[in-house]
Amino acid sequence: MPSKCCGSLFQFVDLLVGGNSAMGILRDAGKCYRPVADVDLGPNSDEFYILADVKGFLLLLFFFSSSSSIGGVARKKLNFDLQLREWLAFSSRYSTHPSSHRPPVTFSDVAEQSVSPVKPNLSPAERVQEAAGCLPASLESSLHGSPCQFRRWTIRDFARAYRSGETTPLAVAKRFLAAVKESEDPKLQMAFFINFSPDDIIRQAEESAQRFQIGAPISIMDGILVAIKDEIDCLPYPTTGGTTWLHKSRPCIDDASCVRQLRSCGAILVGKTNMHELGAGTSGINPHYGATRNPCDINKVSGGSSSGSAAVVCAGLCPVALGVDGGGSVRMPAALCGVVGFKPTSSRLSNSGVLPLNWTVGMPGILAATVEDALLTYAAICSDPPNRPTLLQPSLNFPLLNSAQPLTDIKLAKSSKWFNDSTIDVRNCCDRAISMLCKQYGWKVLDVTVPEIEEMRLAHYVTIGSECTASLAPHLSKLDHAEIGWDARVALSVYGSFTSKDYLNAQRIRNRQTQFHREIFKKADVIVTPTTGVTAYPLLSDALSTGELDYINGAALVRYSIAGNFLGLPAITVMVGYDMGGLPIGLQFIGRPWSEATLLHLAFAMQTICIKSYKKPQVFYNLLETK
Amino acid sequence: MPSKCCGSLFQFVDLLVGGNSAMGILRDAGKCYRPVADVDLGPNSDEFYILADVKGFLLLLFFFSSSSSIGGVARKKLNFDLQLREWLAFSSRYSTHPSSHRPPVTFSDVAEQSVSPVKPNLSPAERVQEAAGCLPASLESSLHGSPCQFRRWTIRDFARAYRSGETTPLAVAKRFLAAVKESEDPKLQMAFFINFSPDDIIRQAEESAQRFQIGAPISIMDGILVAIKDEIDCLPYPTTGGTTWLHKSRPCIDDASCVRQLRSCGAILVGKTNMHELGAGTSGINPHYGATRNPCDINKVSGGSSSGSAAVVCAGLCPVALGVDGGGSVRMPAALCGVVGFKPTSSRLSNSGVLPLNWTVGMPGILAATVEDALLTYAAICSDPPNRPTLLQPSLNFPLLNSAQPLTDIKLAKSSKWFNDSTIDVRNCCDRAISMLCKQYGWKVLDVTVPEIEEMRLAHYVTIGSECTASLAPHLSKLDHAEIGWDARVALSVYGSFTSKDYLNAQRIRNRQTQFHREIFKKADVIVTPTTGVTAYPLLSDALSTGELDYINGAALVRYSIAGNFLGLPAITVMVGYDMGGLPIGLQFIGRPWSEATLLHLAFAMQTICIKSYKKPQVFYNLLETK
Repeated sequence: MPSKCCGSLFQFVDLLVGGNSAMGILRDAGKCYRPVADVDLGPNSDEFYILADVKGFLLLLFFFSSSSSIGGVARKKLNFDLQLREWLAFSSRYSTHPSSHRPPVTFSDVAEQSVSPVKPNLSPAERVQEAAGCLPASLESSLHGSPCQFRRWTIRDFARAYRSGETTPLAVAKRFLAAVKESEDPKLQMAFFINFSPDDIIRQAEESAQRFQIGAPISIMDGILVAIKDEIDCLPYPTTGGTTWLHKSRPCIDDASCVRQLRSCGAILVGKTNMHELGAGTSGINPHYGATRNPCDINKVSGGSSSGSAAVVCAGLCPVALGVDGGGSVRMPAALCGVVGFKPTSSRLSNSGVLPLNWTVGMPGILAATVEDALLTYAAICSDPPNRPTLLQPSLNFPLLNSAQPLTDIKLAKSSKWFNDSTIDVRNCCDRAISMLCKQYGWKVLDVTVPEIEEMRLAHYVTIGSECTASLAPHLSKLDHAEIGWDARVALSVYGSFTSKDYLNAQRIRNRQTQFHREIFKKADVIVTPTTGVTAYPLLSDALSTGELDYINGAALVRYSIAGNFLGLPAITVMVGYDMGGLPIGLQFIGRPWSEATLLHLAFAMQTICIKSYKKPQVFYNLLETK
Repeated sequence: MPSKCCGSLFQFVDLLVGGNSAMGILRDAGKCYRPVADVDLGPNSDEFYILADVKGFLLLLFFFSSSSSIGGVARKKLNFDLQLREWLAFSSRYSTHPSSHRPPVTFSDVAEQSVSPVKPNLSPAERVQEAAGCLPASLESSLHGSPCQFRRWTIRDFARAYRSGETTPLAVAKRFLAAVKESEDPKLQMAFFINFSPDDIIRQAEESAQRFQIGAPISIMDGILVAIKDEIDCLPYPTTGGTTWLHKSRPCIDDASCVRQLRSCGAILVGKTNMHELGAGTSGINPHYGATRNPCDINKVSGGSSSGSAAVVCAGLCPVALGVDGGGSVRMPAALCGVVGFKPTSSRLSNSGVLPLNWTVGMPGILAATVEDALLTYAAICSDPPNRPTLLQPSLNFPLLNSAQPLTDIKLAKSSKWFNDSTIDVRNCCDRAISMLCKQYGWKVLDVTVPEIEEMRLAHYVTIGSECTASLAPHLSKLDHAEIGWDARVALSVYGSFTSKDYLNAQRIRNRQTQFHREIFKKADVIVTPTTGVTAYPLLSDALSTGELDYINGAALVRYSIAGNFLGLPAITVMVGYDMGGLPIGLQFIGRPWSEATLLHLAFAMQTICIKSYKKPQVFYNLLETK
C-alpha cells in the first residue's frame, strides 16, 4: 500500500481535466516552441517557469492503490493525462529542431584556468600519483585559519597512516567489517550493502598490507577502501541492479572498466552498495534489500538511486565510492547525505561493465567525503577506452586541477526562478554559500534564465524510461512481475508506453536545450544551483516493504540534476550547510563539457570555505584511530 | 483498390502462423544475436541469409483491400505479425550492444589513392572549377578506342557550347520548356515535375546568357539546367514532399543550402521534380501528381522516391538533378532509369532546407547522366555548414578525384548470397561488369559475408518510419487523412505503431552493423552489389490513381540500399548494362566514410568501360543541337 494518499478519485479526475492546458503554452497539436534564437536567456526573460506537475503524483498513487496489475488502457490514459505527449510534441510552427541522440558534448574546448594537463597513456596508478602531486600539502593547509569541527579521513590520511606504519590496510579492513556488522544491527538497519564478502575483503587487505610491508605500494590509493554501487560489475559479486533477478539472466563475468582501474591502483573493493531498484527512483528505498538510511539522521531517506554509495561515504566506511548517475543518481544522495557527488562529462568515464539501463544519459559517478578524494578517484578511472569512436573521443590529455593557483574571474550563472524553486532553508543556505564564494575569491554571479526546465525533465524521463525498457525487455519477458517491487513496476509500466515519436521528440528537446546551454556557457563558467530542492525527508515505516511513490519529493530532488545527464554536462555537488533540522544541503556546479578541472577547482574552493562547519553524522565509524 | 491481390484471408493467416519462427534464429524473447566478434564475415560464413519476408506484402494488400481506415488493434497485429519486433528485440544473452543514433561515420580516415585535396574555404564556384581541372580532357578521351553508341550531353558540353557561342542558356531553356510540354502530352504523361515556372526559368537563363555575353560566366556550371526533388526547398516553389498539403503548413521561405550553392555557381534551377508521396515508397507512383514514367520504357516505373529527378536526367532534360536519399531513394530510381546516383557520406552535404522526414538516414543526393557531372555537382554542394558539431565535422579538405592516375590495387568486397538475391539478368550483368573491371584495371574481388541484411532492413524501416512520424506529427494532427494517398496512409499507420523500444533496438542493430562494416572495410576498399534486385517493373494502370503497395518489388528494389543510409556510408550507382527487356541495370559501390573520391574514381572507371554500350532511352530530348 502506498505510503501517502491524498484526495478522492473525483477530486483527482477534476484536477486532470482542469489541468495545465489553460496555461497558454500548450496546443492540441503540441507545444509551440519558439526558435532557440528568440528565447531570452537573460534575467528578465518572459520565459514561463513551470512548476513540476504534481498531478502525476496523485495519479500514480491512485494507480498504485487501486491495482497492482497495470493494464494497457489504463497505462495509456496515465501517460496521456500526464500531458507528457503534449509537452513533448512540437507544433508545426517550429518543428525544425533536429534530433540529437548522443549527449551533445561537442562544444569546442575552452582553455581552463590553472589546469595542468597530464601526459597521455599513463596507467591509472600513474594518473593518481600525478593528481596527488597537484594537491595542497594537506587538507588543513588549504583551510584558512580555524580548523574543522569535524572532518573525515581522506585518502591521503590513510596513505600516510599506512606508510608510517600507524596502521595497516588489514587493520582498517577489519574495522570496516566490524562497522558494517554494527550497521546491520536491528536498531540501525542501515542497509548499506547488497553484497559484501568478508573473505574477499580480507584477502585484498592482506595483499595490500604485504605491499606496504615490502615498501612497494602501487599508488596513493593502495589499501583504500572503495565501495561499488550494485549497478557496476565488480568481481566476485553478482550485479543485481537492486533487483532479485537481473543477475540471474545477466551474470557478472568481469570487473567494470572503472573497477578494474581502481583495483590496479591497489584499492580494496569492499562490496556492492544498496540502490533504488533498477535505479528507477530517488528515495533509496529498496523493498528487497531494505531502505538505505541516511547516516545524518537514520529516520530520513538517503536519496537515490546510489543510496548505499552515498551513505557509506557519509558514515566514514570508505573515503570514496562509485555510483551511477542517469538522472542525478549520484548527486542527489550525495547532497542528502552531505558528501561530494561528482558526475564527469558524458563519455569521460567508460560505461563498460555498468548495467546499460540508460546508456545515453547514465554513467559512473564518484561519491567522496572530500573534493580532493573525488579528484584522486577521478584520476584513477578517467581514461579513453579503446572502443570509443575516434571523433567523439575527448582529448587524450586529462586535465588536472592545480589548486596552488586560485581561480579568479569566475562567473556563476544563476537562474533565479529555478534556483528558488526549493525550500527556504535550501535556497538561503545556497545563496549564503555563493555570497561567501564571491567575497572570498572575487567570483561574480551572472543572472540568467535557463528555460524549459520542466520540459527537459519530461524529455529526460522519456529518454531514460525508453532506454531502460529497451535494455530490460529481454529479461522482463521471462520474469514473473511479482519479483519486481511496486514502484519499479509502476515505473516500468509507464516506460513501456512511450512511442518512438515520444523518444524522438524528447531528443529534439535535448538538442534545443544544448543550444541554450551553449549560449549560457559563452558568458558563464558554470551554472550554480542547489543540488536538490529539498533535504532528506522522513522514511515512513509503511514504505519500507512496498517502496514509495512520492513524486512531490521526487520531483524536488531531481529538479536540478537533469542537464548533467541529458546534455552530458559535468556536475558536482558539495555540502554547503544544514537546514533547520540539521540535514545537509548541497550546492551544485554544472560545467561546460570537458571542464572537469574547473569544476573540481571550484568545488575545492567551496568545500574549503564550508568544511569548517561540517558536523559529525549521527552514524559514523572511525576507521583510522590516529592523530 | 490494390493493383495486385493474391490469396484469401485464410491462406494469408495460415502463412502468418506458419511463418519464419521455425527458422531457428528467432526466440520468444528476441533474437539471440551473436557477439560481433564471433560473427564470421568470410565467404564460408555460416550466417544465414534471410530472404525478405513477403508476408508483409500480402498482409498489407489485405489491409488495403479490406479497409482504408486503419484501426489501432489491426495496426498492432500487423506490426506484430511482421515479426519486426521479434527480430529487433535482443535476447538477454547478447544484449550489451549500445545504441548508436547518429550515423556512425566515425571510422578513422584512410589515405585515398590518387586524391588531390582542395584548399579549404573555397566558394562553391571555386570548388567546381577546381574539380573541373581534375577531369580528363574530354569524356571521349577517357574512352579507350570505340566511341559510344549514344551518350548524353555533359556539363562540359553545355559549357563549351555556351562559351563558343554555338548556343545560349536562353536557347537551351526554351528547348527545355518545349520538351517538358511535350512530355506532358496525354500520350506520354511522363509526370516529371510537380512544379516549374517558365517565367522563373527564362529569367535565370537570360541572366546567365548575359554573363556569357560579357564574358563573365561564374563557373563551368553557369547556365546548366538542374532540377530539384520536391523534398528540397527551392524558391520560388513550395516544397510539397509529393503531398497536397505539407507546403501549406510548412511554407518554403528560402533555398536549401545545396540549392543556394548551385545557384551561386550560375546553375539554372528548372523546377521541382515529382516524387513518391512523402518519400514513403519506391515506385515513384504519386496519386496526386501522376506516376513518373521511366524514359527507358514508359510502361515501366521510374523507381523512387526521387522518381522525377532520375527521369529528367534520363530523358536528357538536365545533365544533373538533386534527389534525397533516405533509403536508397536516389540510387534506386537512378538504377531503374540508367543514370548515375550518388549519395555521399552522411553529413557531407548539408540537410538544411531538406524536409526533415528522416533526419538520421536521409540526405541530399545527386542524379547525373555521367560520373564526371556527379563529381562537378558534388564539388558545388559539398561544404561544411557552420552549425555542424565540431567533433563530427568531416575534414575541411574536400578530396577530389584525379582521374589522370588510374587506381590500382582496389579490392571489391562481394557477399555472394546477398549479391545473388537478384534476378538472373541483374546478377549476370553485374558479375560481367566486375569481371571487366578486374580485367581492365587489375582490381580484385574479395569474397565476404555481410551478415544480417534483412535485420538491418527492418531496423532501418523502424528508424525511417519513427523519424517520419515524429517529423510529420504536428502537420498530420490537423489533417483530413483523406488528403493522403492510400499507400502513404498505410505506411504512416505502420510507422505510428513503433515504440521507443523498437526504435532503440533498431539503433542497436545500427551500431552492430557499423562494426561489421568497419571490419569489412579493413580488408576491402568498397562493397560491390547490384543497385537493385530487379529492373523497372510494369506500371499497372489501376495503380495510377491509388498508388501501389508492391512489397515484393519494393523489397527487391531496396535490398542493397540500406547500409548507405543506416550506416551513413557513401554509395554510388552506375549503369552497367541492360536486362533482356532492354531495361537498365545498375551496379553499386558502397564505400568507407568520407571516401567519396575513391567512390567517384571507381565509378568513373566503371562508366568508362560501360558507356560504350549505352542506348538512347525511349523518351529523350536533345537540348544541345551541336556536333
